[in-house]
Amino acid sequence: MNDRFLRACRREPVDRTPVWFMRQAGRYMAEYRALRTKHTLLELCRTPELALEVTMQPLRAFAFDAAILFADILLPLAPMGASFEFAKGEGPVIHEPIRTRAQIDALRVIDPREDLAYVLEAVRLIRREIDGKTPLIGFAGGPFTLASYLVEGGRSSHFVLTKKLMYSDPESWHALCRTLSAVVLALLDAQIDAGAQAVQLFDSWVGQLSPDDYETFVAPHMRGILQPLMKRGVPVIHFGTGTATLLEAQRDAGGTVIGVDWRTPLDDAWRRLGDGVAVQGNMDPTLLLAPRDVLLKGAKRVLDKAANRNGHIFNLGHGILPETPVENVAAVVDFVHEASTR
Amino acid sequence: MNDRFLRACRREPVDRTPVWFMRQAGRYMAEYRALRTKHTLLELCRTPELALEVTMQPLRAFAFDAAILFADILLPLAPMGASFEFAKGEGPVIHEPIRTRAQIDALRVIDPREDLAYVLEAVRLIRREIDGKTPLIGFAGGPFTLASYLVEGGRSSHFVLTKKLMYSDPESWHALCRTLSAVVLALLDAQIDAGAQAVQLFDSWVGQLSPDDYETFVAPHMRGILQPLMKRGVPVIHFGTGTATLLEAQRDAGGTVIGVDWRTPLDDAWRRLGDGVAVQGNMDPTLLLAPRDVLLKGAKRVLDKAANRNGHIFNLGHGILPETPVENVAAVVDFVHEASTR
Repeated sequence: MNDRFLRACRREPVDRTPVWFMRQAGRYMAEYRALRTKHTLLELCRTPELALEVTMQPLRAFAFDAAILFADILLPLAPMGASFEFAKGEGPVIHEPIRTRAQIDALRVIDPREDLAYVLEAVRLIRREIDGKTPLIGFAGGPFTLASYLVEGGRSSHFVLTKKLMYSDPESWHALCRTLSAVVLALLDAQIDAGAQAVQLFDSWVGQLSPDDYETFVAPHMRGILQPLMKRGVPVIHFGTGTATLLEAQRDAGGTVIGVDWRTPLDDAWRRLGDGVAVQGNMDPTLLLAPRDVLLKGAKRVLDKAANRNGHIFNLGHGILPETPVENVAAVVDFVHEASTR
Repeated sequence: MNDRFLRACRREPVDRTPVWFMRQAGRYMAEYRALRTKHTLLELCRTPELALEVTMQPLRAFAFDAAILFADILLPLAPMGASFEFAKGEGPVIHEPIRTRAQIDALRVIDPREDLAYVLEAVRLIRREIDGKTPLIGFAGGPFTLASYLVEGGRSSHFVLTKKLMYSDPESWHALCRTLSAVVLALLDAQIDAGAQAVQLFDSWVGQLSPDDYETFVAPHMRGILQPLMKRGVPVIHFGTGTATLLEAQRDAGGTVIGVDWRTPLDDAWRRLGDGVAVQGNMDPTLLLAPRDVLLKGAKRVLDKAANRNGHIFNLGHGILPETPVENVAAVVDFVHEASTR
């Protein structure tokens, strides 16, 4: 098997820096867009054979060193009792955003093996398909990020309602996060049981918080998920964006790999994080829309800052953009491999 | 005159920490909403008597230590040739977003004394009204932030088109920023001539960039505005959000006061910025929606980190939110004054 990715997660020497991209399966690929003319996003997620197909698309097209399960961080919310849909061009819409403590208490701590069986079946199908070739990453959303969707009702720019709940009713906030954390931990545990060889926890929007608020309202819940997960013996990637002032606190909460976005130079990030973790990142996804020479210079800058140190996984600082030309993805993946050959 | 604000900008001792809030004139006040039933936002900006009235509203209601001109960073764009409007609930909409070099070359380097005479008349009216009482801050938007509106056509989450222009046609990007910078510098110069006793440069969205990109695509233009301004002898506040990894580069570009948002603890920020600048910030605006005790604890945390050091101006990390209860504004302004009494 190509074990570059898993070796880098464990900070072992590798022949070349491994590379995969968040949202590597998605709208930037014609094969994906073709499937989406026949199926909604949720149908793709909820049909294991389709999730398998979409997961495989980027692996066929590019030399990625890891596969990531095709799914969505919001999938657990529906069986928990918070139904939602993806509205055209607007992203997710939660049908009844959380406004009361009663709604929080009514959320069900689901059993992913029953309520998200299709996710776990997709994991098994993908493992069977790619076993011996590429390792598979499972994932889930962090409690802050999931709670923000539940409370705001969708995407948000200022996270006003989420923070208002945190500040004005911390008991309810923590109750909500405890419920979400129990589900997230169970889901990631089940994905590992089903065959995921690494897991990533997406706390994508946590960079909205001050370090004090992160410590008070988020870190305990992240710790409660990450610490037990780390005992499972598979790499655990802890990811967020805009986290320049949270990196140490995130590391302390847990994770064998810390994801860093393009705002923090990789060498600075690693100096602050110390030797105990691997680091994933951190090219600006918008560089994939740049002319080839600018793109490859950007990739080179990331590699230079990582300096072939053991434990670097090349990735973007956030998900690949739908406008990305596929030939640029191919170019940067190949470039990273060539330029990082030991 | 209450000169606490100006003294703090110059890092001189003060009796109490000065406080003002970005967007202190605005929708959270009933007096403002009442005016808005009769006038559009642009009418308020373009009618000096109305801009005066709106500027004065928060000074009558709260013990703020500075007034800030009521205006909008986008005002220069219309006479430059890029017309826009404020669409309901969506923010600004640029009628013909910049897509070509020809559009950039067609932008007019306006003379603010002619083309934005109403802004300067508002400055003069406000100065006359509050002279001897409260100092007046003028302002403008930074070239990156203005360019992002011109290129994206409005607000943006990923700044894809803006970055794409930077990466794929740096010559045109720099041409655009040079034109914007010339206008911004002339506008701030004219505001100072008209009586503004300090100016703030809002580079609000620059935190979207990596430090490398900031250095290449933004810093030279900010320097070109800030360095001449600093010779005018009035305090120059250099503000952005999400700038945790840009602070040193922003300081080097210029400004006698650096604005910091809530993501960077004020003591860390100041340690990195050094003794040569004053610091403005940095409470999370959402805390103004919290219960009183949580709000005041949040304000106390900011004051504790500033530790009554000369050169702290208490402010939010970004503009006050429209949902803010006015009584909380009163409470925090009074609290800052009391708790910081030397």
